[in-house]
Amino acid sequence: MPAADDAVVASWQANAAAWTGAVRDGLIASRRITGPALIEILRERAPARVLDLGCGEGWLTRALAPMGIAVVGVDASAPLIDAARAAGGGSFLVRDYAAIAAGETTLPLADAIVCNFSLLGLAPVDRLLAAVPHLLDPAAPRAALIVQTLHPHAGCGDAPYRDGWRTETWSGFGEGFVQPAPWYFRTLESWTALLTRSGLWLTDMREPPNPDTGRPASLILVAEPVRDAG
Amino acid sequence: MPAADDAVVASWQANAAAWTGAVRDGLIASRRITGPALIEILRERAPARVLDLGCGEGWLTRALAPMGIAVVGVDASAPLIDAARAAGGGSFLVRDYAAIAAGETTLPLADAIVCNFSLLGLAPVDRLLAAVPHLLDPAAPRAALIVQTLHPHAGCGDAPYRDGWRTETWSGFGEGFVQPAPWYFRTLESWTALLTRSGLWLTDMREPPNPDTGRPASLILVAEPVRDAG
Repeated sequence: MPAADDAVVASWQANAAAWTGAVRDGLIASRRITGPALIEILRERAPARVLDLGCGEGWLTRALAPMGIAVVGVDASAPLIDAARAAGGGSFLVRDYAAIAAGETTLPLADAIVCNFSLLGLAPVDRLLAAVPHLLDPAAPRAALIVQTLHPHAGCGDAPYRDGWRTETWSGFGEGFVQPAPWYFRTLESWTALLTRSGLWLTDMREPPNPDTGRPASLILVAEPVRDAG
Repeated sequence: MPAADDAVVASWQANAAAWTGAVRDGLIASRRITGPALIEILRERAPARVLDLGCGEGWLTRALAPMGIAVVGVDASAPLIDAARAAGGGSFLVRDYAAIAAGETTLPLADAIVCNFSLLGLAPVDRLLAAVPHLLDPAAPRAALIVQTLHPHAGCGDAPYRDGWRTETWSGFGEGFVQPAPWYFRTLESWTALLTRSGLWLTDMREPPNPDTGRPASLILVAEPVRDAG
């Protein structure tokens, strides 16, 4: 694993308290668009069992549980899971992507796996997605992976439009962030290729509009496991 | 069919000579990127039989035939098919999308259907795509629709990012264009939804880079028919 991938996990340990505050105090304006957009897709698909992978301080798990969904929030950052458990309203586990990918931990089969801005690294994300089809219930007809991420175009900024490591400096996210967070930028082409080589086919893509910019606030990818032809 | 859809076909009749000149004289700079990018995908997938839907003056059909591919070029514009036949190097048919969608014309089954910047309308395109799975050989394991189109983000310009009719005024395409051409802008979300409701799942997406702008020169969508699970 490259050093940058280690630094991803480390940053989410170090910044756990500041991040929890930023989410709970509503300091991340775009979340007022992207959160409801994700919940809307879950309402449409109506999964019975959801795995919230990279759940952070747990807001999504807490939002889904009252909808009658059996949801488990999972995150590699122990302090974030501590914050999630302290707020309650769901079931939370500390698990890192490497252990999930390697099959070293058992998670309940799901009808939907949701990754809300939580696929931030390179190699661990590639390995995690390869394992996703095994975490989805083969008997569930519309089982799917649902990924919300920075929109590769609306969010590319002035940097070159190509895959590569970038750094989140937390400017505008409030106080208390002690460590910049590396994250791996992926183009649209690259996201699609990653899904396809993981045995997942894109069936839906959403671009929740940001009325202030006239551009999408995020990209939501919905992918279903490839089933063998009869 | 709305009037704009009729005007799409009419514009490609009226501008046939000017368009043929623009393509053959190399006046459309981006085609030096987008043409090879499309041919590269066809080389990778190595289909035996290709339908070049909306072939225009026929450059792609002529490029594929020497690769040992049985290719048929189809276009609704009779004067463009006349220009294609005059240049030779392939087999060409005048057929409109409505007749293809309605099953009123027989086309040879294909391993790949290619639409190179040729899905320009609204209702006829929706109906054509619904018919595409029936034009692909069910016995061909990797049969696919391959669509190259304006990149919804790199090519959106200053207009709002949402589906709607726009107008090509042919500025920069050389002389002789006598009629502006309406075309229907589709967002990424909308393209994906169109494919999915047509029974086609996205398996690949390419964004050929334009080195001058650092942004994609186009978007290429590769979609395979959904096969029933066994």
